[in-house]
Amino acid sequence: MFTKQELKEFCDNARLNYLDHISIDCVIFGFHEGQLKVLVLKVKGEDAWYLPGGFVLKKEPLDTAANRILKDRTGLDKIFLQQFHVFGDPDRSRPHNEMYRDLIPPEENWFSHRFLTIGYYALVDFVHANPTPDSHSEMCAWRDLNDLPKLELDHGLILKTALDTLRLQLNYQPIGYNLMPKEFTMPELQKLYETILGQKLDRRNFQRRMLGFGILNRLDRPRKGGAHKAPYLYSFDLKNYQDALKEGLKGGW
Amino acid sequence: MFTKQELKEFCDNARLNYLDHISIDCVIFGFHEGQLKVLVLKVKGEDAWYLPGGFVLKKEPLDTAANRILKDRTGLDKIFLQQFHVFGDPDRSRPHNEMYRDLIPPEENWFSHRFLTIGYYALVDFVHANPTPDSHSEMCAWRDLNDLPKLELDHGLILKTALDTLRLQLNYQPIGYNLMPKEFTMPELQKLYETILGQKLDRRNFQRRMLGFGILNRLDRPRKGGAHKAPYLYSFDLKNYQDALKEGLKGGW
Repeated sequence: MFTKQELKEFCDNARLNYLDHISIDCVIFGFHEGQLKVLVLKVKGEDAWYLPGGFVLKKEPLDTAANRILKDRTGLDKIFLQQFHVFGDPDRSRPHNEMYRDLIPPEENWFSHRFLTIGYYALVDFVHANPTPDSHSEMCAWRDLNDLPKLELDHGLILKTALDTLRLQLNYQPIGYNLMPKEFTMPELQKLYETILGQKLDRRNFQRRMLGFGILNRLDRPRKGGAHKAPYLYSFDLKNYQDALKEGLKGGW
Repeated sequence: MFTKQELKEFCDNARLNYLDHISIDCVIFGFHEGQLKVLVLKVKGEDAWYLPGGFVLKKEPLDTAANRILKDRTGLDKIFLQQFHVFGDPDRSRPHNEMYRDLIPPEENWFSHRFLTIGYYALVDFVHANPTPDSHSEMCAWRDLNDLPKLELDHGLILKTALDTLRLQLNYQPIGYNLMPKEFTMPELQKLYETILGQKLDRRNFQRRMLGFGILNRLDRPRKGGAHKAPYLYSFDLKNYQDALKEGLKGGW
């Protein structure tokens, strides 16, 4: 929560530097060994949780803005963010409109404007992404999707829409290169898909379909270890993987 | 091209009624019997072609705005528009910024602002959609994708991105309900997919995959006619089709 003076300074600065009516919010999914989390920020001194978000500079490209905002708010850098949807309900920021109305007149209050927010999302390994909160936030944390605090404004809807998009994306784009070890077994890869989809998959169908995409190499040796029937190891075929990132998975047409 | 007086009136009205920095552009694809077209507008008295677009009223939901704009510009109504991408290159509207700079000062000129544009798209049967141009336009026409005039601003990129999205969509959402006759043969449906994808498909793979989605009913009788081996007729299974619109095609996971 801003003091009156802080709010006035923020609004003066915002009018000068940012595009009016537009914001960006980021949904950063984190996967590791069967767990799916999302990055959320807690406002200092309040029980209020948000997705990391911010405003667009007047001459800034949108993708640049999304990366800058994520870095400013969470410290995370060099993350491949994808735009997925604009949220434009005329009442979506009403709680913010009202929050400060007793502090400064509405015509001076940046937060009294209508904002459309452009959603960006990414999927990373949360073990390799250690966030740090910005100066407005008390905490910047990976929270399990099954154990989320209530998010403010329409950030719950933004998160749900990002998750739907990620699940759809499994059908047409390869995922996993940055999330799996260099060599992995088919059950380990299946676990990634099951975690994102939130459902068990048939082992044989999964294997048949994954191999059908042509993005995996089966290694000559099985995994070392005690089991008498060691599972095969796979690695991503980087060239085919990258082609599929550009052209989409060969869905079978 | 506006006269000075028209431009002044337009800008005064725009400042009063529209959200600054935001516009909407619509890519309306039209299919019929193996032809794929797109709806474009020609400005009165100029050799300048655009996608139908416009601005968002201050309290208007985005989807409502997209439908109103399409109706205002082309006369087309009750078309299911889907948002697909925001185009935000800081220089995307520069040609418009410069077009009117000698008529009125930049601080009064709505067109000198930076605009992000939200792309919406739809796929309809062009035989059942007869457009009429608005008062700014000389022509509102279905043009074949292979015979398009050069589009102004970044409208060529917007169209290309919409086409990529439509092609991807074939992999995860059912299409065709409003584009095919009530009863159709598998080759007729394959032609729709081939036209959108811009490539020939394998007949057997296509049939196997389409039937695998569970959205078609095979009718008991083949098509009447002279051929000694009449092809089977199919119709869409409306319940499964609508479920797939909501949940996505069962891709095989």
